[in-house]
Amino acid sequence: MNSRRTKKSDGNGQFTRDRVFEIAAAVFHRKGYDNTSMSDVAMAAGLTKAGLYHHVSSKESLLYTVLDSGLDLTESYVMKPLEPIADPLDRLKTMIELHLRLVLEERNLEVTGLLHECKTLSAADQGKINRRKKEYVKMTAKLIADVIKKYKITDINPKLAAFALLGMLNWTYQWYKPTGSSSREEIVQNFQHIFLQGILGHSWAEQQAAKACSGGL
Amino acid sequence: MNSRRTKKSDGNGQFTRDRVFEIAAAVFHRKGYDNTSMSDVAMAAGLTKAGLYHHVSSKESLLYTVLDSGLDLTESYVMKPLEPIADPLDRLKTMIELHLRLVLEERNLEVTGLLHECKTLSAADQGKINRRKKEYVKMTAKLIADVIKKYKITDINPKLAAFALLGMLNWTYQWYKPTGSSSREEIVQNFQHIFLQGILGHSWAEQQAAKACSGGL
Repeated sequence: MNSRRTKKSDGNGQFTRDRVFEIAAAVFHRKGYDNTSMSDVAMAAGLTKAGLYHHVSSKESLLYTVLDSGLDLTESYVMKPLEPIADPLDRLKTMIELHLRLVLEERNLEVTGLLHECKTLSAADQGKINRRKKEYVKMTAKLIADVIKKYKITDINPKLAAFALLGMLNWTYQWYKPTGSSSREEIVQNFQHIFLQGILGHSWAEQQAAKACSGGL
Repeated sequence: MNSRRTKKSDGNGQFTRDRVFEIAAAVFHRKGYDNTSMSDVAMAAGLTKAGLYHHVSSKESLLYTVLDSGLDLTESYVMKPLEPIADPLDRLKTMIELHLRLVLEERNLEVTGLLHECKTLSAADQGKINRRKKEYVKMTAKLIADVIKKYKITDINPKLAAFALLGMLNWTYQWYKPTGSSSREEIVQNFQHIFLQGILGHSWAEQQAAKACSGGL
Protein backbone atom coordinates (compact mmCIF):
# COMPACT_ATOMS: atom_id res chain seq x y z
CA MET A 1 0.00 0.00 0.00
CA ASN A 2 2.74 2.38 0.93
CA SER A 3 6.50 2.31 0.38
CA ARG A 4 7.15 3.58 3.90
CA ARG A 5 5.37 0.57 5.39
CA THR A 6 7.78 -2.15 4.39
CA LYS A 7 9.70 -2.94 7.54
CA LYS A 8 7.44 -5.71 8.78
CA SER A 9 5.15 -8.18 7.10
CA ASP A 10 3.33 -10.18 9.79
CA GLY A 11 -0.28 -9.22 10.53
CA ASN A 12 0.37 -8.10 14.08
CA GLY A 13 3.25 -5.81 13.08
CA GLN A 14 1.04 -4.19 10.43
CA PHE A 15 -1.64 -3.63 13.05
CA THR A 16 0.83 -1.86 15.35
CA ARG A 17 2.18 0.27 12.51
CA ASP A 18 -1.30 1.40 11.41
CA ARG A 19 -2.15 2.22 15.03
CA VAL A 20 1.10 4.23 15.29
CA PHE A 21 0.15 6.35 12.28
CA GLU A 22 -3.36 6.86 13.63
CA ILE A 23 -2.04 7.89 17.03
CA ALA A 24 0.61 10.15 15.47
CA ALA A 25 -2.11 11.93 13.46
CA ALA A 26 -4.11 12.50 16.65
CA VAL A 27 -1.09 13.80 18.60
CA PHE A 28 0.02 16.11 15.74
CA HIS A 29 -3.55 17.43 15.59
CA ARG A 30 -3.83 18.04 19.32
CA LYS A 31 -0.41 19.58 20.02
CA GLY A 32 0.45 20.94 16.56
CA TYR A 33 3.12 19.23 14.41
CA ASP A 34 5.80 21.72 15.46
CA ASN A 35 5.23 21.05 19.18
CA THR A 36 5.15 17.26 18.93
CA SER A 37 8.29 15.25 19.64
CA MET A 38 8.93 11.61 18.75
CA SER A 39 8.81 10.95 22.52
CA ASP A 40 5.24 12.33 22.63
CA VAL A 41 4.17 9.96 19.85
CA ALA A 42 5.97 6.99 21.46
CA MET A 43 4.33 7.70 24.81
CA ALA A 44 0.83 8.04 23.28
CA ALA A 45 1.33 4.78 21.38
CA GLY A 46 2.60 2.96 24.48
CA LEU A 47 5.98 2.31 22.87
CA THR A 48 9.54 3.10 23.88
CA LYS A 49 11.31 5.62 21.65
CA ALA A 50 13.39 2.75 20.22
CA GLY A 51 10.16 0.84 19.60
CA LEU A 52 8.77 3.78 17.65
CA TYR A 53 11.95 4.09 15.54
CA HIS A 54 11.48 0.43 14.63
CA HIS A 55 8.36 1.51 12.71
CA VAL A 56 9.44 4.85 11.32
CA SER A 57 12.77 6.55 10.65
CA SER A 58 11.97 10.20 11.50
CA LYS A 59 9.22 12.63 12.46
CA GLU A 60 9.12 13.86 8.85
CA SER A 61 8.67 10.35 7.50
CA LEU A 62 5.88 9.84 10.07
CA LEU A 63 4.12 12.95 8.76
CA TYR A 64 4.51 11.81 5.14
CA THR A 65 2.99 8.42 5.95
CA VAL A 66 0.13 9.98 7.91
CA LEU A 67 -0.73 12.22 4.92
CA ASP A 68 -0.25 9.46 2.35
CA SER A 69 -2.43 7.04 4.36
CA GLY A 70 -5.10 9.75 4.64
CA LEU A 71 -5.12 10.04 0.86
CA ASP A 72 -5.28 6.21 0.52
CA LEU A 73 -8.33 6.29 2.77
CA THR A 74 -9.95 9.04 0.66
CA GLU A 75 -9.40 6.91 -2.44
CA SER A 76 -10.96 3.77 -0.97
CA TYR A 77 -13.70 5.42 1.11
CA VAL A 78 -14.83 8.20 -1.28
CA MET A 79 -13.54 7.77 -4.85
CA LYS A 80 -14.01 4.00 -5.37
CA PRO A 81 -17.66 3.81 -4.18
CA LEU A 82 -18.59 6.59 -6.67
CA GLU A 83 -17.52 4.61 -9.73
CA PRO A 84 -20.65 2.44 -10.11
CA ILE A 85 -23.10 5.37 -9.63
CA ALA A 86 -24.46 6.27 -13.06
CA ASP A 87 -26.47 9.44 -12.40
CA PRO A 88 -24.21 12.54 -12.12
CA LEU A 89 -26.32 14.24 -9.42
CA ASP A 90 -26.51 11.09 -7.28
CA ARG A 91 -22.74 10.71 -7.69
CA LEU A 92 -22.02 14.27 -6.52
CA LYS A 93 -24.52 14.04 -3.66
CA THR A 94 -22.90 10.78 -2.51
CA MET A 95 -19.41 12.30 -2.78
CA ILE A 96 -20.46 15.11 -0.41
CA GLU A 97 -21.83 12.59 2.07
CA LEU A 98 -18.84 10.22 1.95
CA HIS A 99 -16.22 12.98 2.11
CA LEU A 100 -17.96 14.52 5.13
CA ARG A 101 -18.43 11.16 6.85
CA LEU A 102 -14.77 10.34 6.28
CA VAL A 103 -13.61 13.63 7.80
CA LEU A 104 -16.13 13.61 10.65
CA GLU A 105 -16.18 9.93 11.61
CA GLU A 106 -13.06 8.19 10.54
CA ARG A 107 -10.37 10.12 12.37
CA ASN A 108 -9.42 11.77 9.10
CA LEU A 109 -10.21 15.08 10.79
CA GLU A 110 -6.65 15.13 12.05
CA VAL A 111 -5.20 14.33 8.64
CA THR A 112 -7.17 17.13 6.96
CA GLY A 113 -5.74 19.57 9.48
CA LEU A 114 -2.24 18.29 8.79
CA LEU A 115 -2.43 18.92 5.03
CA HIS A 116 -1.05 22.39 5.81
CA GLU A 117 2.10 20.87 7.27
CA CYS A 118 3.00 19.58 3.84
CA LYS A 119 5.59 22.36 3.52
CA THR A 120 7.80 20.77 6.15
CA LEU A 121 8.33 17.74 3.87
CA SER A 122 11.17 17.36 1.37
CA ALA A 123 10.44 18.74 -2.11
CA ALA A 124 10.04 15.19 -3.50
CA ASP A 125 7.56 14.10 -0.81
CA GLN A 126 5.67 17.39 -1.09
CA GLY A 127 5.39 16.80 -4.84
CA LYS A 128 3.94 13.31 -4.31
CA ILE A 129 1.31 14.52 -1.80
CA ASN A 130 0.42 17.56 -3.93
CA ARG A 131 -0.07 15.40 -7.03
CA ARG A 132 -2.58 13.23 -5.14
CA LYS A 133 -4.41 16.31 -3.79
CA LYS A 134 -4.64 17.72 -7.34
CA GLU A 135 -6.11 14.45 -8.65
CA TYR A 136 -8.85 14.74 -6.07
CA VAL A 137 -9.64 18.35 -7.02
CA LYS A 138 -9.78 17.25 -10.67
CA MET A 139 -12.19 14.42 -9.85
CA THR A 140 -14.42 16.82 -7.90
CA ALA A 141 -14.45 19.35 -10.76
CA LYS A 142 -15.38 16.53 -13.18
CA LEU A 143 -18.30 15.40 -10.95
CA ILE A 144 -19.59 19.00 -10.92
CA ALA A 145 -19.04 19.49 -14.66
CA ASP A 146 -21.13 16.36 -15.37
CA VAL A 147 -23.98 17.64 -13.18
CA ILE A 148 -24.12 21.15 -14.64
CA LYS A 149 -23.93 19.72 -18.15
CA LYS A 150 -26.92 17.47 -17.48
CA TYR A 151 -28.97 20.38 -16.06
CA LYS A 152 -27.74 22.87 -18.71
CA ILE A 153 -26.26 25.29 -16.16
CA THR A 154 -23.93 27.79 -17.78
CA ASP A 155 -23.10 30.32 -15.07
CA ILE A 156 -20.91 28.11 -12.88
CA ASN A 157 -17.17 27.47 -13.33
CA PRO A 158 -16.75 23.78 -12.30
CA LYS A 159 -13.17 24.23 -11.08
CA LEU A 160 -14.10 27.18 -8.83
CA ALA A 161 -17.19 25.30 -7.63
CA ALA A 162 -14.92 22.32 -6.76
CA PHE A 163 -12.69 24.58 -4.66
CA ALA A 164 -15.79 26.06 -2.96
CA LEU A 165 -17.09 22.57 -2.15
CA LEU A 166 -13.75 21.21 -0.91
CA GLY A 167 -13.41 24.32 1.26
CA MET A 168 -16.82 23.69 2.85
CA LEU A 169 -15.99 20.02 3.43
CA ASN A 170 -12.39 20.28 4.60
CA TRP A 171 -12.82 23.34 6.82
CA THR A 172 -14.95 21.15 9.13
CA TYR A 173 -11.72 20.03 10.83
CA GLN A 174 -11.46 23.61 12.17
CA TRP A 175 -14.80 23.65 13.99
CA TYR A 176 -16.40 20.20 14.23
CA LYS A 177 -16.65 18.62 17.67
CA PRO A 178 -18.43 15.26 18.13
CA THR A 179 -19.98 16.72 21.31
CA GLY A 180 -21.30 19.82 19.45
CA SER A 181 -24.97 20.66 18.89
CA SER A 182 -25.20 19.47 15.25
CA SER A 183 -25.35 15.80 14.33
CA ARG A 184 -23.29 14.51 11.42
CA GLU A 185 -26.56 13.77 9.63
CA GLU A 186 -27.64 17.41 9.95
CA ILE A 187 -24.27 18.62 8.66
CA VAL A 188 -24.46 16.28 5.64
CA GLN A 189 -28.02 17.43 4.79
CA ASN A 190 -27.29 21.15 5.19
CA PHE A 191 -24.10 20.97 3.12
CA GLN A 192 -25.70 18.89 0.33
CA HIS A 193 -28.63 21.30 0.23
CA ILE A 194 -26.50 24.49 0.19
CA PHE A 195 -24.05 23.27 -2.43
CA LEU A 196 -26.42 21.41 -4.78
CA GLN A 197 -29.11 24.11 -4.68
CA GLY A 198 -26.22 26.60 -5.02
CA ILE A 199 -25.11 25.22 -8.38
CA LEU A 200 -28.51 23.97 -9.68
CA GLY A 201 -31.04 26.55 -8.42
CA HIS A 202 -34.61 25.59 -9.30
CA SER A 203 -33.52 22.30 -10.92
CA TRP A 204 -32.54 21.15 -7.43
CA ALA A 205 -35.93 22.13 -6.00
CA GLU A 206 -37.70 20.31 -8.85
CA GLN A 207 -35.56 17.26 -8.36
CA GLN A 208 -36.33 17.23 -4.63
CA ALA A 209 -40.06 17.68 -5.27
CA ALA A 210 -40.06 14.81 -7.78
CA LYS A 211 -38.35 12.60 -5.20
CA ALA A 212 -40.93 13.51 -2.56
CA CYS A 213 -43.78 12.62 -4.99
CA SER A 214 -42.27 9.23 -5.82
CA GLY A 215 -42.02 8.39 -2.12
CA GLY A 216 -38.40 9.36 -1.65
CA LEU A 217 -37.02 6.87 -4.21
CA MET B 1 -3.52 48.87 18.35
CA ASN B 2 -1.74 45.93 19.87
CA SER B 3 -0.01 45.37 23.19
CA ARG B 4 2.94 43.65 21.52
CA ARG B 5 3.63 46.76 19.50
CA THR B 6 4.74 49.08 22.26
CA LYS B 7 8.51 49.25 21.97
CA LYS B 8 8.67 52.29 19.69
CA SER B 9 6.44 55.27 19.21
CA ASP B 10 7.80 57.32 16.28
CA GLY B 11 6.07 56.99 12.92
CA ASN B 12 9.04 55.48 11.15
CA GLY B 13 9.49 52.79 13.80
CA GLN B 14 5.82 51.84 13.44
CA PHE B 15 6.26 51.57 9.69
CA THR B 16 9.21 49.20 10.11
CA ARG B 17 7.35 47.10 12.66
CA ASP B 18 4.28 46.72 10.44
CA ARG B 19 6.53 45.75 7.53
CA VAL B 20 8.26 43.18 9.76
CA PHE B 21 4.92 41.53 10.60
CA GLU B 22 3.89 41.56 6.95
CA ILE B 23 7.19 40.02 5.88
CA ALA B 24 7.06 37.46 8.72
CA ALA B 25 3.57 36.37 7.57
CA ALA B 26 4.89 35.89 4.03
CA VAL B 27 7.95 33.90 5.16
CA PHE B 28 5.89 31.70 7.54
CA HIS B 29 3.48 31.05 4.68
CA ARG B 30 6.21 30.17 2.16
CA LYS B 31 8.45 28.00 4.34
CA GLY B 32 5.95 26.83 6.98
CA TYR B 33 6.06 28.22 10.53
CA ASP B 34 8.01 25.23 11.82
CA ASN B 35 10.77 25.64 9.23
CA THR B 36 11.18 29.39 9.64
CA SER B 37 13.91 30.75 11.90
CA MET B 38 14.20 34.27 13.27
CA SER B 39 17.27 34.61 11.01
CA ASP B 40 15.07 33.88 7.97
CA VAL B 41 12.64 36.64 8.98
CA ALA B 42 15.48 39.08 9.73
CA MET B 43 17.09 38.38 6.36
CA ALA B 44 13.81 38.80 4.44
CA ALA B 45 13.15 42.09 6.28
CA GLY B 46 16.66 43.38 5.60
CA LEU B 47 17.45 43.55 9.32
CA THR B 48 20.17 42.05 11.49
CA LYS B 49 18.95 39.46 13.98
CA ALA B 50 19.53 42.03 16.78
CA GLY B 51 17.50 44.54 14.75
CA LEU B 52 14.61 42.07 14.53
CA TYR B 53 14.73 41.38 18.30
CA HIS B 54 14.37 45.12 18.79
CA HIS B 55 10.85 44.83 17.36
CA VAL B 56 9.76 41.46 18.71
CA SER B 57 10.84 39.27 21.63
CA SER B 58 10.40 35.76 20.15
CA LYS B 59 9.15 33.78 17.16
CA GLU B 60 6.00 32.92 19.11
CA SER B 61 5.28 36.55 19.87
CA LEU B 62 5.83 37.32 16.16
CA LEU B 63 3.21 34.69 15.26
CA TYR B 64 0.74 36.06 17.81
CA THR B 65 1.10 39.57 16.43
CA VAL B 66 0.75 38.37 12.83
CA LEU B 67 -2.53 36.59 13.72
CA ASP B 68 -3.84 39.43 15.87
CA SER B 69 -3.08 42.00 13.14
CA GLY B 70 -4.84 39.77 10.61
CA LEU B 71 -7.95 39.82 12.81
CA ASP B 72 -7.65 43.63 13.21
CA LEU B 73 -7.62 43.87 9.43
CA THR B 74 -10.71 41.64 9.15
CA GLU B 75 -12.50 43.90 11.59
CA SER B 76 -11.70 47.11 9.77
CA TYR B 77 -11.89 45.78 6.20
CA VAL B 78 -14.93 43.47 6.46
CA MET B 79 -16.97 43.97 9.65
CA LYS B 80 -17.00 47.79 9.91
CA PRO B 81 -18.13 48.49 6.31
CA LEU B 82 -21.12 46.16 6.79
CA GLU B 83 -22.62 48.17 9.65
CA PRO B 84 -24.36 50.87 7.56
CA ILE B 85 -25.87 48.37 5.07
CA ALA B 86 -29.57 48.02 5.94
CA ASP B 87 -30.73 45.19 3.66
CA PRO B 88 -29.75 41.73 5.04
CA LEU B 89 -29.09 40.20 1.61
CA ASP B 90 -26.96 43.14 0.46
CA ARG B 91 -25.04 42.89 3.74
CA LEU B 92 -24.29 39.18 3.31
CA LYS B 93 -23.42 39.61 -0.37
CA THR B 94 -21.01 42.40 0.53
CA MET B 95 -19.47 40.34 3.34
CA ILE B 96 -18.65 37.56 0.85
CA GLU B 97 -17.04 40.06 -1.51
CA LEU B 98 -15.02 41.88 1.17
CA HIS B 99 -13.84 38.73 2.93
CA LEU B 100 -12.69 37.24 -0.39
CA ARG B 101 -11.01 40.47 -1.49
CA LEU B 102 -9.22 40.70 1.84
CA VAL B 103 -7.89 37.15 1.58
CA LEU B 104 -7.05 37.36 -2.13
CA GLU B 105 -5.71 40.88 -2.42
CA GLU B 106 -4.50 42.18 0.90
CA ARG B 107 -1.77 39.70 1.80
CA ASN B 108 -4.12 38.16 4.33
CA LEU B 109 -3.78 34.91 2.40
CA GLU B 110 -0.71 34.15 4.48
CA VAL B 111 -2.49 34.98 7.74
CA THR B 112 -5.45 32.70 6.91
CA GLY B 113 -3.02 29.85 6.35
CA LEU B 114 -1.35 30.58 9.68
CA LEU B 115 -4.57 30.32 11.70
CA HIS B 116 -3.76 26.60 12.06
CA GLU B 117 -0.52 27.42 13.84
CA CYS B 118 -2.54 28.84 16.71
CA LYS B 119 -1.77 25.68 18.72
CA THR B 120 1.88 26.62 19.07
CA LEU B 121 0.89 29.72 21.11
CA SER B 122 0.58 29.82 24.90
CA ALA B 123 -2.87 28.90 26.26
CA ALA B 124 -3.60 32.56 27.07
CA ASP B 125 -2.67 33.82 23.59
CA GLN B 126 -4.56 30.93 21.96
CA GLY B 127 -7.60 31.91 24.01
CA LYS B 128 -7.42 35.53 22.82
CA ILE B 129 -7.14 34.56 19.14
CA ASN B 130 -9.87 31.93 19.45
CA ARG B 131 -12.27 34.40 21.05
CA ARG B 132 -11.82 36.77 18.11
CA LYS B 133 -12.32 33.95 15.60
CA LYS B 134 -15.53 32.92 17.39
CA GLU B 135 -16.87 36.48 17.27
CA TYR B 136 -16.42 36.45 13.52
CA VAL B 137 -18.27 33.12 13.15
CA LYS B 138 -21.09 34.52 15.29
CA MET B 139 -21.33 37.65 13.13
CA THR B 140 -21.46 35.50 9.97
CA ALA B 141 -24.20 33.27 11.44
CA LYS B 142 -26.20 36.41 12.37
CA LEU B 143 -25.89 37.82 8.81
CA ILE B 144 -27.22 34.51 7.44
CA ALA B 145 -30.00 34.26 10.07
CA ASP B 146 -31.22 37.76 9.08
CA VAL B 147 -31.34 36.79 5.40
CA ILE B 148 -33.20 33.51 5.86
CA LYS B 149 -35.66 35.18 8.22
CA LYS B 150 -36.44 37.84 5.62
CA TYR B 151 -36.99 35.21 2.90
CA LYS B 152 -38.83 32.79 5.24
CA ILE B 153 -36.34 29.94 4.69
CA THR B 154 -36.75 27.21 7.30
CA ASP B 155 -34.52 24.36 6.12
CA ILE B 156 -31.11 25.97 6.77
CA ASN B 157 -29.21 25.99 10.06
CA PRO B 158 -27.52 29.47 10.12
CA LYS B 159 -24.55 28.29 12.21
CA LEU B 160 -23.79 25.37 9.88
CA ALA B 161 -24.29 27.64 6.87
CA ALA B 162 -21.78 30.09 8.42
CA PHE B 163 -19.19 27.32 8.75
CA ALA B 164 -19.88 26.24 5.15
CA LEU B 165 -19.37 29.82 3.93
CA LEU B 166 -16.24 30.48 5.98
CA GLY B 167 -14.84 27.19 4.69
CA MET B 168 -15.42 28.25 1.07
CA LEU B 169 -13.85 31.66 1.71
CA ASN B 170 -10.88 30.68 3.88
CA TRP B 171 -9.88 27.57 1.96
CA THR B 172 -8.87 29.87 -0.93
CA TYR B 173 -5.47 30.27 0.74
CA GLN B 174 -4.87 26.60 -0.16
CA TRP B 175 -5.35 26.97 -3.90
CA TYR B 176 -5.47 30.61 -5.04
CA LYS B 177 -2.62 31.91 -7.17
CA PRO B 178 -2.68 35.47 -8.55
CA THR B 179 -1.28 34.02 -11.79
CA GLY B 180 -4.04 31.37 -12.04
CA SER B 181 -6.75 31.22 -14.70
CA SER B 182 -9.59 32.75 -12.62
CA SER B 183 -9.78 36.46 -11.88
CA ARG B 184 -10.71 37.63 -8.39
CA GLU B 185 -13.91 39.04 -9.88
CA GLU B 186 -14.89 35.63 -11.24
CA ILE B 187 -14.19 33.97 -7.88
CA VAL B 188 -16.33 36.57 -6.04
CA GLN B 189 -19.23 36.12 -8.49
CA ASN B 190 -19.15 32.31 -8.46
CA PHE B 191 -18.93 32.12 -4.66
CA GLN B 192 -21.73 34.68 -4.10
CA HIS B 193 -23.91 32.83 -6.60
CA ILE B 194 -23.27 29.35 -5.15
CA PHE B 195 -23.73 30.34 -1.53
CA LEU B 196 -26.66 32.77 -1.86
CA GLN B 197 -28.59 30.58 -4.30
CA GLY B 198 -27.62 27.69 -2.01
CA ILE B 199 -29.44 29.14 0.99
CA LEU B 200 -32.21 31.04 -0.84
CA GLY B 201 -33.11 28.85 -3.83
CA HIS B 202 -35.70 30.46 -6.08
CA SER B 203 -35.82 33.64 -3.96
CA TRP B 204 -32.28 34.32 -5.16
CA ALA B 205 -33.24 33.80 -8.81
CA GLU B 206 -36.24 36.14 -8.37
CA GLN B 207 -34.09 38.73 -6.66
CA GLN B 208 -31.54 38.57 -9.50
CA ALA B 209 -34.28 38.85 -12.13
CA ALA B 210 -35.80 41.87 -10.38
CA LYS B 211 -32.38 43.52 -10.33
CA ALA B 212 -31.91 42.88 -14.04
CA CYS B 213 -35.35 44.45 -14.77
CA SER B 214 -34.57 47.55 -12.75
CA GLY B 215 -31.33 48.06 -14.68
CA GLY B 216 -29.02 46.44 -12.14
CA LEU B 217 -29.83 48.85 -9.32
